[in-house]
Amino acid sequence: MARERQHSQPTRLSRRTLLGGTAAAAGALTLTTTAAGTAAAATRTVDVAIVGGGLAGLTAARDLVAAGKTVVVLEARDRVGGRVVNLRLAGGGVTEGGGEFIGPTQDRIKALADSLGVATFPTYNTGKNLLYKDGKKTPYATDGLLGSVPPIDAAGLANAAIVQASLDDMAKQVPVDAPWSAAKAEEWDRQTFETWLRANAVIPSAKFLLDVACTSIFSAEPRELSLLFVLFYIAAAGNESNAGTLERLTETANGAQELRFVGGSQQVPIKLAATLGDRVVLNAPVRTISQSGGQYVVTADGVTVTAKKVVVAVPPPLAARISYAPLLPAARDQLAQRLPMASVGKAIAVYDTPFWRADGLNGQVVSDTGVVSSTFDNSPPDASYGALMGFIEADEMRALDAASEAEVRAAVLKDYVTYFGEKAASPSSFVLQRWNNEAYTRGGPVSIAAPGVLTQYGPALRRPVGGIHWAGTETSTYWMGFMDGAVRSGERVAKEVLAAL
Amino acid sequence: MARERQHSQPTRLSRRTLLGGTAAAAGALTLTTTAAGTAAAATRTVDVAIVGGGLAGLTAARDLVAAGKTVVVLEARDRVGGRVVNLRLAGGGVTEGGGEFIGPTQDRIKALADSLGVATFPTYNTGKNLLYKDGKKTPYATDGLLGSVPPIDAAGLANAAIVQASLDDMAKQVPVDAPWSAAKAEEWDRQTFETWLRANAVIPSAKFLLDVACTSIFSAEPRELSLLFVLFYIAAAGNESNAGTLERLTETANGAQELRFVGGSQQVPIKLAATLGDRVVLNAPVRTISQSGGQYVVTADGVTVTAKKVVVAVPPPLAARISYAPLLPAARDQLAQRLPMASVGKAIAVYDTPFWRADGLNGQVVSDTGVVSSTFDNSPPDASYGALMGFIEADEMRALDAASEAEVRAAVLKDYVTYFGEKAASPSSFVLQRWNNEAYTRGGPVSIAAPGVLTQYGPALRRPVGGIHWAGTETSTYWMGFMDGAVRSGERVAKEVLAAL
Repeated sequence: MARERQHSQPTRLSRRTLLGGTAAAAGALTLTTTAAGTAAAATRTVDVAIVGGGLAGLTAARDLVAAGKTVVVLEARDRVGGRVVNLRLAGGGVTEGGGEFIGPTQDRIKALADSLGVATFPTYNTGKNLLYKDGKKTPYATDGLLGSVPPIDAAGLANAAIVQASLDDMAKQVPVDAPWSAAKAEEWDRQTFETWLRANAVIPSAKFLLDVACTSIFSAEPRELSLLFVLFYIAAAGNESNAGTLERLTETANGAQELRFVGGSQQVPIKLAATLGDRVVLNAPVRTISQSGGQYVVTADGVTVTAKKVVVAVPPPLAARISYAPLLPAARDQLAQRLPMASVGKAIAVYDTPFWRADGLNGQVVSDTGVVSSTFDNSPPDASYGALMGFIEADEMRALDAASEAEVRAAVLKDYVTYFGEKAASPSSFVLQRWNNEAYTRGGPVSIAAPGVLTQYGPALRRPVGGIHWAGTETSTYWMGFMDGAVRSGERVAKEVLAAL
Repeated sequence: MARERQHSQPTRLSRRTLLGGTAAAAGALTLTTTAAGTAAAATRTVDVAIVGGGLAGLTAARDLVAAGKTVVVLEARDRVGGRVVNLRLAGGGVTEGGGEFIGPTQDRIKALADSLGVATFPTYNTGKNLLYKDGKKTPYATDGLLGSVPPIDAAGLANAAIVQASLDDMAKQVPVDAPWSAAKAEEWDRQTFETWLRANAVIPSAKFLLDVACTSIFSAEPRELSLLFVLFYIAAAGNESNAGTLERLTETANGAQELRFVGGSQQVPIKLAATLGDRVVLNAPVRTISQSGGQYVVTADGVTVTAKKVVVAVPPPLAARISYAPLLPAARDQLAQRLPMASVGKAIAVYDTPFWRADGLNGQVVSDTGVVSSTFDNSPPDASYGALMGFIEADEMRALDAASEAEVRAAVLKDYVTYFGEKAASPSSFVLQRWNNEAYTRGGPVSIAAPGVLTQYGPALRRPVGGIHWAGTETSTYWMGFMDGAVRSGERVAKEVLAAL
């Protein structure tokens, strides 16, 4: 797990690894800790100060630099990538603790990765999915509804198909750039997704499938989400030429889990940061953003930046923890109070071989029990070892937030044994990423919206406040919550700032 | 309006007024700005550092001092009282910008005020209420449902009475110290209050009454609230001997709006702070709380305090803006991300006389339109002048967050003229308190909870984190959201800390 360093000195990108605390993949970029003075902080003067060195902030920096502007990226952690992080495995190799998959219509992350020479490979998807329900394991073929035709009763399947079609139809009525302007926005934003599901997914097995889809997509329970927010999120799972669908969110083949990055997804922000050189400052959590005359002064631990414009590219609840002078408008501050991070962890167990493949399984489980209710085969492209990745989501993650790593490991491996047999009991390596416990995300994968938020506060999401502009995957019209949304938001904010400079 | 001073030097309580920026009531306590050095911050070492000089923090300080402990209260503003503030009127006298009413079962604020010699007087309640609905004004007598028997259709009245009885019955099943343990907690926490109202307040006029009650009580729309949270709030509107009821929340006589304080409600925290002397440090927003060995170091602008224990007595979303080392547990941090402040303002117009009284009106309006949909007669006990106070709540407040003070004034006075006639058009004085725009509340009167929050995060509300203890009205079992809840929380946290010291 990446450890947070709240009080360390700022570090420029040069020689030490950019990976997380325990990560040290071969060939990774490196950096050196600057021997910062004990007294005065370093200062810089640039056109644009960028808060956050995730994909959004780095993409914005790239585009601004390409347009001839001077920038500095202030990153709180000792690595770039934000919610995208490679984790080192004890036996060598890397796995991913954060965002890792991309899929069709995620054009901008794909273009970025291509430009940096980071290749993709297909997520392992050969063989059957496994349904674990009512204490029974049932393998099933991987196509159709929710990535599958799960072996449930026909009435449940029919009900789930109708619900899915209804959600897609409703999502088509939600403009991705202004969900609050949908004709039925008020109706959809006054109820939870749970309320709507109970009225529509009336067959228990259908409700089960939709519940699993919900926690898998949002790492949140249906009761936590506004129906309008869910519809927006579905609408956003596409691009300018392809309407978003629920299926694209849940599928592996032809869906958002289709491809992975060779070397781990963090290769993208690492290589992107490398093109920016010492414009990226690590270990520099931003504390204040103050307007002074026609300029902004951004103070981070150990470094103070003067800039004409500021891009804030961190999740909304964390952006609210910066002190602003003058104060942010009420709409922006109250929005940030109302977009909490969901709850998620990832657990990756490594084995000598992907032994489940020999059993005709693709490593993807849908379960009605356990702390891990959805899994993926996270083995490397050459299958030189096997890796099972499980999401710990929503209520299950919350229940384990205060547990020790050993306790979480034991609970996860118990599930893996249930799904894949005794061989799963003894991994050669086990890594755990607990996003709720990270200082600079405090949850994940993305902010969620309860009823009443989008209709009343949505317009404040991207609206600049003076010379402060907002980025991050939460501000994206397409693929909010995904790496693609982060890249899109960086590209959008760079255009916005260039037009304003 | 109280202006925020984000970067001013810390000030000890001694000679300058403790009232808000524009306030200077005769006889108020005063303080002097310390000529703070430009380099090193002042330091103090005490048993308990208390963050926040509202009623909760000050009450905790009083009890800890009475038990022989040393304390310091760090208050971000240039005044004590938090969400309780007196505002000076241009023509002399004070009015209240924040919490002002108390009522039956609010025993702890009453006892505190008594101990400080702050007297109460009845809220003006003689004459008729006014219903403004569908463009028509109808005076009505003030007893019965929702503080009245409003002149609506009989079916609507009957429906509203049933809904009210249902809410009270359900609230009786909610333990105030653990709402998440109610037998039906999950059912009630998976839906919005709006969803429940639509299924139960089926007559439009009944829905109207409940909507007005909701915005009046919470300064939030029914769609923003979990049904379980609403039921808890009703249950909390009582004390150990009297079950909470909706009526007690909405009533003037025999309800939470029954009494006011002579000299304005801020007299209570002002006089309480006076007993604490220079233990109260103003202009000292807290930035970090760090554990170091067996002690805590609390850094505020201009002052650093070393303490054995820390009491955080500020609203949850603001508590999350302090930087903690070690990090707060995920449950506590994610709770704070999920308890946003509601949206509220108060507008007080002052006239030579309370002219509406001569028309047989008590100054209390319930309206289906305008920016102010509920009003009170806020005149002083001797009626030496007349004051109309209007709440600007929820959607109405949000819509005006970015408006100028002149625009808000015009909109409010237009409503007052609609309700009380042309005489209301020309007040001799007009004051406006916009809580959403205040740095150290960013909304009001209280944090609210959407579906899914109490059941998953409620237990983190009062659970200490090491030596950090939590206070503030949001942590109270009874009268959460009221001055009484703040005092109760201060008394509870002092006991908690004394037991732990």
